[in-house]
Amino acid sequence: MKGLKAHEAWRGKLRIASVPTIESMADLTLAYTPGVAEASLAIVKDPSRTNALTWRGRLVGVISDGSAVLGLGNIGPDAALPVMEGKCVLFKRFADLDAIPLVLDTQDPEAFIRTVVHLAPSLGAINLEDIKAPECVHIERTLKKLLSIPVFHDDQHGTAIVVLAGLINALTVVQKAREDVKVVLSGLGAAGSAITKLLAASGFKHLVGFDVLGKLHPNRVTNALEEELVSYLERSNPTQSLQEALIDADVFIGVSAGNILNAKDIQAMNEGAIVFALANPTPEISYQEAHEAGAAVVATGRSDAPNQINNVLAFPGLIRAALMLELSQFDEQHYLKAAHAIAALVDRPTPTHIVPTVFDERLTQALYEALKNT
Amino acid sequence: MKGLKAHEAWRGKLRIASVPTIESMADLTLAYTPGVAEASLAIVKDPSRTNALTWRGRLVGVISDGSAVLGLGNIGPDAALPVMEGKCVLFKRFADLDAIPLVLDTQDPEAFIRTVVHLAPSLGAINLEDIKAPECVHIERTLKKLLSIPVFHDDQHGTAIVVLAGLINALTVVQKAREDVKVVLSGLGAAGSAITKLLAASGFKHLVGFDVLGKLHPNRVTNALEEELVSYLERSNPTQSLQEALIDADVFIGVSAGNILNAKDIQAMNEGAIVFALANPTPEISYQEAHEAGAAVVATGRSDAPNQINNVLAFPGLIRAALMLELSQFDEQHYLKAAHAIAALVDRPTPTHIVPTVFDERLTQALYEALKNT
Repeated sequence: MKGLKAHEAWRGKLRIASVPTIESMADLTLAYTPGVAEASLAIVKDPSRTNALTWRGRLVGVISDGSAVLGLGNIGPDAALPVMEGKCVLFKRFADLDAIPLVLDTQDPEAFIRTVVHLAPSLGAINLEDIKAPECVHIERTLKKLLSIPVFHDDQHGTAIVVLAGLINALTVVQKAREDVKVVLSGLGAAGSAITKLLAASGFKHLVGFDVLGKLHPNRVTNALEEELVSYLERSNPTQSLQEALIDADVFIGVSAGNILNAKDIQAMNEGAIVFALANPTPEISYQEAHEAGAAVVATGRSDAPNQINNVLAFPGLIRAALMLELSQFDEQHYLKAAHAIAALVDRPTPTHIVPTVFDERLTQALYEALKNT
Repeated sequence: MKGLKAHEAWRGKLRIASVPTIESMADLTLAYTPGVAEASLAIVKDPSRTNALTWRGRLVGVISDGSAVLGLGNIGPDAALPVMEGKCVLFKRFADLDAIPLVLDTQDPEAFIRTVVHLAPSLGAINLEDIKAPECVHIERTLKKLLSIPVFHDDQHGTAIVVLAGLINALTVVQKAREDVKVVLSGLGAAGSAITKLLAASGFKHLVGFDVLGKLHPNRVTNALEEELVSYLERSNPTQSLQEALIDADVFIGVSAGNILNAKDIQAMNEGAIVFALANPTPEISYQEAHEAGAAVVATGRSDAPNQINNVLAFPGLIRAALMLELSQFDEQHYLKAAHAIAALVDRPTPTHIVPTVFDERLTQALYEALKNT
């Protein structure tokens, strides 16, 4: 219960700090009326000055409906609030951005979208968080169309970027080319679908996808997200199981559930197997077990093993870069550049070092340079 | 342009500060996953713990649609943002509360209401700001019904509370009783309508109300707000002018427009006239002119004359008290108690000292005690 005790002591992980000090009536008339009217009038004259005259130029809204929080599921807005506060702490620590947690009391995607659109003038960028699939994909896509500030769904694209970064370096370790490898994905929700699309966009040719219902293929498509996904996936052998698909696979990427693989599954894979077992907190197979079964490179989401695939590597620097460069929206090219920039921070990839640590101080600058040249 | 220069230097008047420091992986796992899951699960079990385990227990949303900002009018959400930030600075300075500015991209009252309702789980209390009348009254009333967190429209009730506080002490100075005085009000928007209702609730018997169309009486009522207001107002002499009404009046309260009165109007008032000329930045009549015309007590909204009627006297401490006392909603009794508590901080009222200064350190405690005993 260390986490609860810490939260009880903190009484909230965020505070507002005031930039102007208010110790006299003169201070007050500068920061508030009538002094503030000059800033307002300057914005009336030229709305593009808003970001420079307010905190909006570096403000991120971390927005959730609490429908798919961490491994906890649909716990609603109140219980999601500590998680969103935590995300704001990460924005501060890793990108020196101001971020505010906004949890919404609706799980209707259209109401969610309308609320965020109405809120948008308050924010410089939007980080969508912990919204269940497939709604999250529709929400993110619609908001990107409606708004001209960067909208980023971290559970989708943050995960996909860091997975691709790790995979680039893991392939260097095993000396295989992305065009040649067979990748088996387990989990096709927010993270899995974004990983599938980003891997396809970056040149991976052979992707096989599974979820709780088995292999995704055209016969069992039930929504628009799956319809789109299936076009990137191998469509033969509709009844093939995950275990069968792993025979002769080169890469396993799990964003699904704990303990669904064992040593035999890993042994069935090709020489130089890459295993990303990213279910949290319990991976699809533990680092140790996958390693002992002969996998060449193993990564998990955990901080107590090598090769932690952690979204913190991507989202703070990426959104900071978008704000600094005044990007009106993210696209796939940004995600690809970001993944390569993160991968490039590891000089010589080894089996236990395929991604930089989250404390690598070069991260924000590297992401800024990557997006600047997009 | 001192105000603009200051805003250019500040680049936003607010910053987020992180309570936990994140210098190691252990720090990270405490403030974010998996540590934060313990706080979330505690809230799932008992939602009443949200305020103590997050910043919500002291978080105020300062929310506006930018439709009636300061004296600037309907300048929209972008240009309103510096003002809302300023308000957040005041919450921090005068009540040590965290407050975030939220400007909404809609001026449809129903869309505004829905947006705020969806946002409510993010906030401990709501300060509505700079929304035009009569919409503001409908918005505030509806939100108070729908939400169980304190909702406060400062332009209405903050102003009314401080006006009543000042008036209580001004009446002491001139030794008149509230039941006996004739009060003439100019301006019946957000502030004027709230002042009217609060004065009526506190025992003032003789109120005459004017707006740009002249005297408000039943023949010219055009909306529900006016319908309600007219019931508190003197309804004879429908064509009487403001100047005519001031003859033999004891109190003038202006929340309307600059320079609409002159020395003759003040001279026409009763002995011991009280003049609150609160239009900002230019009062209905200047402090100096009203004083020289023989008014016994003069107050304005300005900081460069005695008796500044400033909402900062009320809203920070009032909302702080509501959060600390976990009030589910404000009502008129709270406003009356608050006005009396503010008035009581002036030991011996004089013509140039009817309200405490905004830097009076006893304010928040006095308001807390007042609301505690409601």
